[in-house]
Amino acid sequence: MPLRRVGILTGGGDCSGLNAVIRAITRAAIIQHNATVIGIEDGFEGLIFDRRCELDIKSTREILPLGGTILGTSNKGNPFEYREFDDKGQIVVHDYSERSVKNFKKMMLDCLFVVGGEGTLMISHEFFKRGLPVIGVPKTIDNDLEGTDYTFGFQTAVQVACDALDRLQTTGKSHERVMILEVMGRHAGWIALESGIAGGAHIILIPEIPYNLDLVMDKIKLRAAGGSPFSIIVVAEGAKPVGGGEVITHEAGKTLQGVVRLGGVGNTIASQIACNIDLEVRCTVLGHIQRGGTPNAFDRVLGTRLGSYAVQAAAEGKFGHMVSLNTPDITLAPMENLAGKVRLVPPTSQLVQCAEAIGICMGR
Amino acid sequence: MPLRRVGILTGGGDCSGLNAVIRAITRAAIIQHNATVIGIEDGFEGLIFDRRCELDIKSTREILPLGGTILGTSNKGNPFEYREFDDKGQIVVHDYSERSVKNFKKMMLDCLFVVGGEGTLMISHEFFKRGLPVIGVPKTIDNDLEGTDYTFGFQTAVQVACDALDRLQTTGKSHERVMILEVMGRHAGWIALESGIAGGAHIILIPEIPYNLDLVMDKIKLRAAGGSPFSIIVVAEGAKPVGGGEVITHEAGKTLQGVVRLGGVGNTIASQIACNIDLEVRCTVLGHIQRGGTPNAFDRVLGTRLGSYAVQAAAEGKFGHMVSLNTPDITLAPMENLAGKVRLVPPTSQLVQCAEAIGICMGR
Amino acid sequence: MPLRRVGILTGGGDCSGLNAVIRAITRAAIIQHNATVIGIEDGFEGLIFDRRCELDIKSTREILPLGGTILGTSNKGNPFEYREFDDKGQIVVHDYSERSVKNFKKMMLDCLFVVGGEGTLMISHEFFKRGLPVIGVPKTIDNDLEGTDYTFGFQTAVQVACDALDRLQTTGKSHERVMILEVMGRHAGWIALESGIAGGAHIILIPEIPYNLDLVMDKIKLRAAGGSPFSIIVVAEGAKPVGGGEVITHEAGKTLQGVVRLGGVGNTIASQIACNIDLEVRCTVLGHIQRGGTPNAFDRVLGTRLGSYAVQAAAEGKFGHMVSLNTPDITLAPMENLAGKVRLVPPTSQLVQCAEAIGICMGR
Amino acid sequence: MPLRRVGILTGGGDCSGLNAVIRAITRAAIIQHNATVIGIEDGFEGLIFDRRCELDIKSTREILPLGGTILGTSNKGNPFEYREFDDKGQIVVHDYSERSVKNFKKMMLDCLFVVGGEGTLMISHEFFKRGLPVIGVPKTIDNDLEGTDYTFGFQTAVQVACDALDRLQTTGKSHERVMILEVMGRHAGWIALESGIAGGAHIILIPEIPYNLDLVMDKIKLRAAGGSPFSIIVVAEGAKPVGGGEVITHEAGKTLQGVVRLGGVGNTIASQIACNIDLEVRCTVLGHIQRGGTPNAFDRVLGTRLGSYAVQAAAEGKFGHMVSLNTPDITLAPMENLAGKVRLVPPTSQLVQCAEAIGICMGR
Repeated sequence: MPLRRVGILTGGGDCSGLNAVIRAITRAAIIQHNATVIGIEDGFEGLIFDRRCELDIKSTREILPLGGTILGTSNKGNPFEYREFDDKGQIVVHDYSERSVKNFKKMMLDCLFVVGGEGTLMISHEFFKRGLPVIGVPKTIDNDLEGTDYTFGFQTAVQVACDALDRLQTTGKSHERVMILEVMGRHAGWIALESGIAGGAHIILIPEIPYNLDLVMDKIKLRAAGGSPFSIIVVAEGAKPVGGGEVITHEAGKTLQGVVRLGGVGNTIASQIACNIDLEVRCTVLGHIQRGGTPNAFDRVLGTRLGSYAVQAAAEGKFGHMVSLNTPDITLAPMENLAGKVRLVPPTSQLVQCAEAIGICMGR
Repeated sequence: MPLRRVGILTGGGDCSGLNAVIRAITRAAIIQHNATVIGIEDGFEGLIFDRRCELDIKSTREILPLGGTILGTSNKGNPFEYREFDDKGQIVVHDYSERSVKNFKKMMLDCLFVVGGEGTLMISHEFFKRGLPVIGVPKTIDNDLEGTDYTFGFQTAVQVACDALDRLQTTGKSHERVMILEVMGRHAGWIALESGIAGGAHIILIPEIPYNLDLVMDKIKLRAAGGSPFSIIVVAEGAKPVGGGEVITHEAGKTLQGVVRLGGVGNTIASQIACNIDLEVRCTVLGHIQRGGTPNAFDRVLGTRLGSYAVQAAAEGKFGHMVSLNTPDITLAPMENLAGKVRLVPPTSQLVQCAEAIGICMGR
Repeated sequence: MPLRRVGILTGGGDCSGLNAVIRAITRAAIIQHNATVIGIEDGFEGLIFDRRCELDIKSTREILPLGGTILGTSNKGNPFEYREFDDKGQIVVHDYSERSVKNFKKMMLDCLFVVGGEGTLMISHEFFKRGLPVIGVPKTIDNDLEGTDYTFGFQTAVQVACDALDRLQTTGKSHERVMILEVMGRHAGWIALESGIAGGAHIILIPEIPYNLDLVMDKIKLRAAGGSPFSIIVVAEGAKPVGGGEVITHEAGKTLQGVVRLGGVGNTIASQIACNIDLEVRCTVLGHIQRGGTPNAFDRVLGTRLGSYAVQAAAEGKFGHMVSLNTPDITLAPMENLAGKVRLVPPTSQLVQCAEAIGICMGR
Repeated sequence: MPLRRVGILTGGGDCSGLNAVIRAITRAAIIQHNATVIGIEDGFEGLIFDRRCELDIKSTREILPLGGTILGTSNKGNPFEYREFDDKGQIVVHDYSERSVKNFKKMMLDCLFVVGGEGTLMISHEFFKRGLPVIGVPKTIDNDLEGTDYTFGFQTAVQVACDALDRLQTTGKSHERVMILEVMGRHAGWIALESGIAGGAHIILIPEIPYNLDLVMDKIKLRAAGGSPFSIIVVAEGAKPVGGGEVITHEAGKTLQGVVRLGGVGNTIASQIACNIDLEVRCTVLGHIQRGGTPNAFDRVLGTRLGSYAVQAAAEGKFGHMVSLNTPDITLAPMENLAGKVRLVPPTSQLVQCAEAIGICMGR
């Protein structure tokens, strides 16, 4: 298929490596196909409101090491259910899908590359079913996508959390404290598990394995009794106590955007532990530091490979597919395969077994 | 003065570079004076309860890049007012100063090197007044000590905060969010100010300059109006609103050690901003990640110089003094000079002027 | 199989992640099997001369982030052909294999874990054939081992080279220079290829694709003509010109250990380019900086998984096998499979295609 | 003085922090004085050939963490003695100073900020004497400028070298090798001395203290005899043997730009050591990796302060002066003070004493 004009759109949360994908698509489309490349701005909002720019070799120069996305991104712009305030300040929902299709046609694109998470890719698949030539590039910091070994951004997030653990280790030890690091992972514990193993954590709590606080306390006390009155705990933000015990989330008042959370599971556990043992406890919520900033080498290579292969797939007319890592190859899979499939950490997986084999308490 | 036996003690909070000081004192004392070096463990607790080990070239090998202190440290062990639980679980206060002096004499030390913050050094000065040959090495992550250009650990903390800001910048920009980073600094805003300038923050709030939230909001809105609907705010944990407005600190219940704070000034500001503008706001509390981990090159050199010079000062009998950086030299100052003198950021200092000259909002 | 006493030996060149493997084997053997763990020092030299120490939880504490190997390593100690100087200063070769077997038996080990490259594993396989219960853990910085997706240490080396490229990029651009970075890879170009893609190199030269200097010059000139009078070249130390042109290696005189090389292919190319174009050319040989230092998170996880799985394999009596990464699993393969199989970069592989698709010149 | 139009020029070698200076000058000039800011490209070449661009808030956004200089730089463009090839390929020298003055007047600048090393600042002083309103910002990676505590870029270079030493330490120890790191410093040993202390080097050789190879060998042998058969040596590129022994510089043939050096003092020492002891020796020449890349927090703050203060100095009419760090203040000094004054490491300075006190061999 000739690729004369192609578009790129990045949707959903930030993720290190997005610019590597944008750069690779742009370069491959221009160098291999002499195509014109259009950047659609702020995710699907750019499609709805026709916000775009032209990308070329020059404008994608020097973006490989940059975090974020030069195209902007957005979590809210679902064209099928777009939320806005009306004149009276009430939230109303519009279906802007036809408008998006019309804008797409106006742009005269031979292919639209969509880089995004499950939500973004499912929207893209809807557009594909309506006839748009779409190729997907999967993106999730949490690494919880079925059908791909790793998603870009994940290894960088693990490294950031591991660096934080390296720093907490020495402070925990010098001060004889329990140090808790809350990392990303609402549904899947991959970041917590890999960074915890890499950072020498003593306890790792993930959503897939509800934790028994008594066992966590036992581990801390056992360590203290053995001459190590400090422990490092990594907890995924979606970790839950066994039996569904309560996670105290303090809210700081209603806001236009919802609510600013004061503390989640990390702080809940911190206070529960502090009430039960004569050790100081500290909790750090790593937050968006995991999302942004320069990608590590692994994610730069992965993002570049996915982008370059996506262009090849487009030239072969493989629309409705997404590219994914099937070590050591990049391969194609139908986008519809994604629907509703979150790749969780199997509680009996090798990785969990490895953690437990070397003495890490998984809270069970 | 002959140095046949010397002791080292590290007190107060963790700080990158402590091991560089320990290593330098140990090596200089052994290499220059053929001395025996005794490490007193866990701050003044080690003096009270006579916990110690011998340090030599081998045991201080490879500790230069390590965070923390191989001797352990403690915030609670003031020998003049030592707090313990009695049999009934009540807190009682003992004066263990004579016991400490007795232990010191038992160790037969020609000099005790005490590495610590204002509290630790004041205690040391008391012992000096009772005849103990003490040399001080000042330590504070906050850099708020009178009479020294920089304290070790500070530059490392600034670097850690700056790295976090680099990562938040791209996420803030991609997502059009207000990103708040709360850093250390209960009384002094040095970390916030230097890391904010280094990390390209748009707003920096420090304890020395009470902030006017309206001006903070104006800055955010002005940026949004100018096409930059995102802002990066660095706030020191001790920052206060002008007029003494309230900082909401949610507590997670009483504990043996006091209280686990849920959110401080960073989260308070986050919710106040979120209630006033249609932008998402996120707050990250960096916490102990700033305290621990490998010191940067600057702090390794500074720690090594302070330690090596302290040994020279001891050999010259300059007890009751502390070593300090007087760029480019290490010099001596009486320890009593420290008393009650916290080095705050002068609101009219060059550094603050520099920040404001390049357009950073200091909340005033 | 009961594991009452096990031994660990690390051989061959340094590699980030060795201590992660040692720590994982030690912890898993003790925690899962209550075993005694013996560390054999300095590779096979420790087996020949019976140099060993006991490893336990405490002695492997805090080594996870450390580069190198706490057991020491050696390139020269092949027990089957051990080279020594005799009384007259002549090199003589001894077969110490029986002596090694005797020492092994004296240690009464139920399993010997050997961590090493192709050479080390082939020697181990010889011992296995003589009845020793050996499990292999493959190690090569170059990632050129058949049968495993990645070897530990490789990603760290790629990251180090990528960091260097990030720094060279800005200097190259500011100065309008050709910057050459020579990286490891005598036979295989994996480090050069992945770090070159990650670091935004314009030209990558690897052993598997003999380079045509004219094409390299064309690329540099084309870039200069297009307004970019600077280029970044990554060259693997084993890269060769097409047709076998000469690589000038200056020697700095004979030494006991052989020869100190002054310049290799990187410097040869540097001078050839400098003679042909009016641009300054600089070459940096990264050398052993790639081998040592703290492993990144990926390599720490990989090393830990390999070590922990090796213990499981030993308990199942799978001697003569080695553990390897078969993403996402760790699996077993017979050690003899390794013999003489170096995993080179296929010149038609996806990875090379990716590089060329985005405009990187591979010298062909 | 009103500042309506100002210019910025960066000359000499690359240095981390240049963009921080450019950004600070641009922002302060616009925000404080509403000035127009002109960037002169490629050092003085831009003045000779009238190459320039306009700088504003937007074009200096996001450059704070970037290495290099967005204005380009040049080592060769001395307007008083400009070297070019004539038609016959011969080098001819032109005096373009009047042409430069004419271009300067054409630009109608109220002030020209020149960021550069001794050479660049001396040229600027010549122009000042001819009536041009010039303010200097000193720059040298080597930190060898009289009248300023630190120059920006230096601490970053020390950190890069220190990181390399951290990695060489573990490889050196595991392999029992002598590892040599050659760092920048043709005349002054500041980088070698500070990075060597920070990186735990055993031997540091600097230009200011001619080294006695016998003493170097003694140190290596003493360490080996004491159970440490490895040593880490940091050598400044300008280090010289006592008595003027020969440094073997292999040349790789004549080129248009001069000569590509194969090995300098680092490799010379490597081969001399290798010929005298039964240990393997490796040398890494760090080269331009020290010059480029993201500045650390210290250099970003320093560059920002110098730039912002330079604008203030211009507004006060302090032409012919340069800004410099006089910890903790930025102060002014006449540019002519610089002439011919290189700040060397005094062999009896505290810093050298410190190194020797903890057992580092300085080759004397």
